Amino acid sequence: MAKIIVDTMGADLGLAEVVKGCLEATSLDNTLELILVGPEEEIAPLVAGIKKIQVIDAKEVITNLDNPMVAIREKQNASIVVALELLRSDESIDGLVTAGATGALICGSILKLKKLPGAKPALLASLIGKDFKPFCLVDCGANIDSPASFLVSFAKMGVSYMEACFGIKNPKVALLSNGAESTKGDARTKEAHQLLKETNLYFIGNVEASHVLDGLCDCVVCDGFSGNMILKNTEGTAKFILASLIQKKNEVNEDGKKLLDEVIKDLTKQFDYNGLGGAVLVGFDKILIKGHGASNHTSIKNIIFQAVKMANGDIIHKMEQNL
Amino acid sequence: MAKIIVDTMGADLGLAEVVKGCLEATSLDNTLELILVGPEEEIAPLVAGIKKIQVIDAKEVITNLDNPMVAIREKQNASIVVALELLRSDESIDGLVTAGATGALICGSILKLKKLPGAKPALLASLIGKDFKPFCLVDCGANIDSPASFLVSFAKMGVSYMEACFGIKNPKVALLSNGAESTKGDARTKEAHQLLKETNLYFIGNVEASHVLDGLCDCVVCDGFSGNMILKNTEGTAKFILASLIQKKNEVNEDGKKLLDEVIKDLTKQFDYNGLGGAVLVGFDKILIKGHGASNHTSIKNIIFQAVKMANGDIIHKMEQNL
Repeated sequence: MAKIIVDTMGADLGLAEVVKGCLEATSLDNTLELILVGPEEEIAPLVAGIKKIQVIDAKEVITNLDNPMVAIREKQNASIVVALELLRSDESIDGLVTAGATGALICGSILKLKKLPGAKPALLASLIGKDFKPFCLVDCGANIDSPASFLVSFAKMGVSYMEACFGIKNPKVALLSNGAESTKGDARTKEAHQLLKETNLYFIGNVEASHVLDGLCDCVVCDGFSGNMILKNTEGTAKFILASLIQKKNEVNEDGKKLLDEVIKDLTKQFDYNGLGGAVLVGFDKILIKGHGASNHTSIKNIIFQAVKMANGDIIHKMEQNL
Repeated sequence: MAKIIVDTMGADLGLAEVVKGCLEATSLDNTLELILVGPEEEIAPLVAGIKKIQVIDAKEVITNLDNPMVAIREKQNASIVVALELLRSDESIDGLVTAGATGALICGSILKLKKLPGAKPALLASLIGKDFKPFCLVDCGANIDSPASFLVSFAKMGVSYMEACFGIKNPKVALLSNGAESTKGDARTKEAHQLLKETNLYFIGNVEASHVLDGLCDCVVCDGFSGNMILKNTEGTAKFILASLIQKKNEVNEDGKKLLDEVIKDLTKQFDYNGLGGAVLVGFDKILIKGHGASNHTSIKNIIFQAVKMANGDIIHKMEQNL
């Protein structure tokens, strides 16, 4: 029963790939309604005859090369601007997904949408830990200089996300630091540790960067700069290892190639953030998902279903309660 | 021709393992002189008859559970205290290696040794990037709240290290940030970017955490908190993948096991920081190396040879010139 806007612009693989993902999503869930925003003359022929897909025209695009704060104001006909305006004004719409520029989504949301009371907007990433146990990392980069008090808001929203999307009761929260002891950390982290202890969250203490994937907690909280490091470094290290496995295939026989292909497939699944969905921009009264710039149609389909799951889990309401 | 002190205490695998590494080192390099600090009655029987090994008695140990600043002052007979005192007072000794507590090494060095003019002490880690190209990451955690100006000092010492140990001429320096553009980063990183541009270092700009292993530069500079994240997260992600490969071995036939063993061996070599040596505490007028707490005899031998390489590369003099 969800109604989601899809920004069709700004994805690396182009508009047709995004639309293909939308078609897959509606074919799999016939209660789903999508509103595709982008150049109508390009989208319309691709979705002709699909009742559950509506098209809203928008000719411009905001890219990573634009200054987002300026572009959001000046490019009034950019797809993300039109999409956010529609999201703001139509109560029946649950959320928005995009594979376009992150900065445009964040700045646009700040300018156009309503923040949840007490929330500091943040980027939340879903990752997969030990034994394929999902957990979230928040903030991954929406705030680059975050004071300690922000981290409490991040924790509360992370907890709501794990409750709503994964049905986890009383999710465990850990604080990213350079040591497990409560005395470890930079000034911000040490202060955040104290603040988190004073909440009624299930706070289990600090977690070191080496143990983020160990499945010790459901939500890892950190400032946006550190979160960006962890997210990108985990991805980079996994990619590095995958590349070495791919190279190794050249040295082995057919059976060996088959085995390595299996290993590569498993690891890709484990570390494919697209598989678990995109980064969620939390802190607003609507569901907002940023897919990877390089999203293919399957990734687009996945982030649409992620939005549906969040809508069905009544996440906005849960966040309001937890904050 | 190097003369190195080895702290035999505080290693997870015990004193005998450390001494075994020392014996291997002296048997491979007959110009090397070692001074082993620790309980004489335990060490002496293990090194009886080896002329190039001298033993200095020290009965106490400082562990990770001690408050290092307090313990350094109170445990006057701790191995690291005795070792640093000896290092300070004897000009003929090049440096010190230890697998004991990091905090004790840092605090002890601050209290006992001479800082190089203009240096901010930092922990430097050697890592292996694409195509087995070595690079260094500095600071990895000696300074937890580092102002931007410190990062310039870290860069200069990192460059000296790559010149002295790997013979790299005019090493490339990159600054860890959340985006490649110079406008990206927290306040500290943006300021450090400007400061690095004003030096005569070969500064190539920002590097994202996803590209640290890509071999784009010889020295990655960052504050100690972020560096700690990168070092530990890279290690943690690699370990996580290695564990999944070890598990996979249970599902395959003998040929498959053999192939996976090969892959595991390659990856272990790639990500074994002990293989490339320990973390170097730079900024003092002596060579200081901190091996992993879990160092085995081979790792101990490797960090001794790392110290020898640094001594032969005249690193202290190079750092003095670059700072």
